[in-house]
Amino acid sequence: MRDETCIFCKIIADEIPSYTIYEDEEFRVILDVNPASKGHALILPKEHYANIYEIEEELAGRAMRLAKKLAVHMTKVLACDGFNLLQNNHQTAGQTVFHFHMHLIPRYKNAKNSDILIWNHENFTPEEMEEVKNALKCSRDSEQG
Amino acid sequence: MRDETCIFCKIIADEIPSYTIYEDEEFRVILDVNPASKGHALILPKEHYANIYEIEEELAGRAMRLAKKLAVHMTKVLACDGFNLLQNNHQTAGQTVFHFHMHLIPRYKNAKNSDILIWNHENFTPEEMEEVKNALKCSRDSEQG
Repeated sequence: MRDETCIFCKIIADEIPSYTIYEDEEFRVILDVNPASKGHALILPKEHYANIYEIEEELAGRAMRLAKKLAVHMTKVLACDGFNLLQNNHQTAGQTVFHFHMHLIPRYKNAKNSDILIWNHENFTPEEMEEVKNALKCSRDSEQG
Repeated sequence: MRDETCIFCKIIADEIPSYTIYEDEEFRVILDVNPASKGHALILPKEHYANIYEIEEELAGRAMRLAKKLAVHMTKVLACDGFNLLQNNHQTAGQTVFHFHMHLIPRYKNAKNSDILIWNHENFTPEEMEEVKNALKCSRDSEQG
């Protein structure tokens, strides 16, 4: 339920101060203290789940529903020009606090950080793409479902 | 329901080929043809919604539930070391196809593209953070809910 070493669990328990912008029974939403932009916020489930692999499917769905509502609200308040939802898992993917969270990142025209989302494409041949497709192909009834 | 100019609507209607890895009544999941990494895929709702602002809340929640299941599945198949979920809205946020989609991005140790998620922080004073917090503060019963 709670990880004693987790900074987000401590924030949720009000043992560490935060800039909280929303709270309900399941979620706390705080401003990121190292923001990529003005208004950059984080949706935290109050229960401790390390990542997307651990979180319950239904709770992940409710986090996304909240993200949609907050995207509308924040865009209106901040008058931003775009919006990213980002959710990182494991250090290799940029996760730094190992308590599931969703980044809500308002974007502004001409912002200095607007390059965050420009990635270099990797090149794969059609054969390589087919191979990956065949490896990943699944249905609702298969193991993933 | 369908946007005649939308490439994703054409893919969903099988008018343009794709590397499809999953399909059900509501969603099609395809490989990104300009992948950031091996296995980079996109969850597309079959109905046309331009972005997070337009999509129905319940459908967004079900997209996230599917993302969770596919993250587990893809990580197992690809043996990747991390995973990002990314959802971009408007050009300023890196959206290039204006049909709501969620990026599923497997990450691999020592990959050349692992810098995608390193952003430069913006610096705000505690007073500026308070100001943003107060502007954004909301509750389930307020306008956003």
